[in-house]
Amino acid sequence: MSEFEYIDWLKKRTPPGSRTTIGLGDDCAGFRFRDGCEALITTDMLLDGSCFILEEAGPIAVGRKALAVNLSDIAAMAGIPRAAVVSLALPRKGGAEIAQGLFIGIEKLAKEFDVEIIGGDTNTWNGPLAISITLFGESEGPPIRRNGAKVGDWIFVTGPLGGSILGKHLTFTPRVKEALYLARNYPIHAMIDLSDGLSRDLHHICEESRCGACIHADWLPISEAAITQSQSDGSSTRNHALHDGEDFELCFTVDPEVGKAIAQHTEFCVLIGFIVPAGRYELLLSGAYVPLPIGGYQHEFK
Amino acid sequence: MSEFEYIDWLKKRTPPGSRTTIGLGDDCAGFRFRDGCEALITTDMLLDGSCFILEEAGPIAVGRKALAVNLSDIAAMAGIPRAAVVSLALPRKGGAEIAQGLFIGIEKLAKEFDVEIIGGDTNTWNGPLAISITLFGESEGPPIRRNGAKVGDWIFVTGPLGGSILGKHLTFTPRVKEALYLARNYPIHAMIDLSDGLSRDLHHICEESRCGACIHADWLPISEAAITQSQSDGSSTRNHALHDGEDFELCFTVDPEVGKAIAQHTEFCVLIGFIVPAGRYELLLSGAYVPLPIGGYQHEFK
Repeated sequence: MSEFEYIDWLKKRTPPGSRTTIGLGDDCAGFRFRDGCEALITTDMLLDGSCFILEEAGPIAVGRKALAVNLSDIAAMAGIPRAAVVSLALPRKGGAEIAQGLFIGIEKLAKEFDVEIIGGDTNTWNGPLAISITLFGESEGPPIRRNGAKVGDWIFVTGPLGGSILGKHLTFTPRVKEALYLARNYPIHAMIDLSDGLSRDLHHICEESRCGACIHADWLPISEAAITQSQSDGSSTRNHALHDGEDFELCFTVDPEVGKAIAQHTEFCVLIGFIVPAGRYELLLSGAYVPLPIGGYQHEFK
Repeated sequence: MSEFEYIDWLKKRTPPGSRTTIGLGDDCAGFRFRDGCEALITTDMLLDGSCFILEEAGPIAVGRKALAVNLSDIAAMAGIPRAAVVSLALPRKGGAEIAQGLFIGIEKLAKEFDVEIIGGDTNTWNGPLAISITLFGESEGPPIRRNGAKVGDWIFVTGPLGGSILGKHLTFTPRVKEALYLARNYPIHAMIDLSDGLSRDLHHICEESRCGACIHADWLPISEAAITQSQSDGSSTRNHALHDGEDFELCFTVDPEVGKAIAQHTEFCVLIGFIVPAGRYELLLSGAYVPLPIGGYQHEFK
């Protein structure tokens, strides 16, 4: 079973409740409180040995990343991050230093994004470090969902892709400001943050929007790190850009007319392809259409 | 360093932000969203081998407990639970069965308390199971804090204490309804849920309220499980009632006049002592005052 099969199983069991405005399967949940206030809510758990190597990265970078991945989810819906709670499972040995380092990393990024740390839960055990952050936000207008892409839409990403493992997965800047800029200036149809790899995350948009996509291989913005990676592992820079996880750029779709304006006026956005009818998920490569495999990362368990 | 020293360190570093209505060091955080809506937020992480033994309890009971401990925190402030997100670190082997079992346990209790499960994060690793739930609630009136106890207050608990490890720690009913009943009918000065043991949790009320407490040993309601435990380990039933963790009853204080009414009309509430001036934290035992040690459980890390 993969995490996505598990989410499908959950979705079938639990239809969204009456106060849930955005249920399972988007970057954030949406929930309406009694007096009409709607909150965006997202949660991410990071695990030593899987999402980071504590010994290599150090606790400050890990704390930063734990908040940053949540900020990226709020960005994916063009939300404004507001407050967070932090839960820790600390190794007993070295736990004090780790706990303080984590918090220093969290605190610095929280200040940059005006997020209040309002609570948490601190535990110890004989296992490795696990850190779970839940972040709450608000949106100015209707949150941007994954399910609004339309055939003919232009597909953009907000920056170069691939090779994040060489460092960016710890140091990336969540695209909160970029998302707000876009949402304030253009009608965005669908948006997601690139955490599991472009080929997998864009596919989430296609599934939720019931459409396909065609990526122009030559248009993919390639990061320096993808070039370095490619030189050392022999896999193409294109493959790194398409399938590497944790770029934490945004991928979004807009009407062609809006796309033209964005392409002209918004320097950080790169056109990479188009939304096409459902059933096609492909790459335009050397003048030929080839199927785009869904790579990227998913958690598997048996 | 203990978890409470860590919380103190955090408190000094981060004064509550302008939208934080209840900061670190209470059962829930309080946060005011843009349009004035105030949410109660609490988070708890449960770890295999520390908060439960997965092999003995099974995933359904563990899922139930993970939500129940959060419900108990909302109860401690007389809040109304509304929605939750669930993060999992699953062992790779057996993860599918565990994930589904956890959710069955969560779902059943969520329905009983009208809580919507709105999102989460599912991960796998080579470590043991960790589950983190963040629960959001609302309050009808001002949330009941830990810091409102006054000298002369009567101290009550909502049920028998001790020996929870024999089973109640997995099967307890969070006192959400009882807390709402109390808050709707009586002015409650201070309240906490008993998760770390009466002697430790009542001390939190005393610290936050800058007062002391005197417990009448003979008045302590002793659970059947505490008697069983006492017979097998030789420790007194009183010690079990005072120091055992995870009773998940409520402990609250009220004005004496209100206390009289509660003692007369509210069957599930048991008077156990009085709030006294700061500097005294004691037990009235066989006609003599003796210091009440702070036992119970705290996470320690170095």
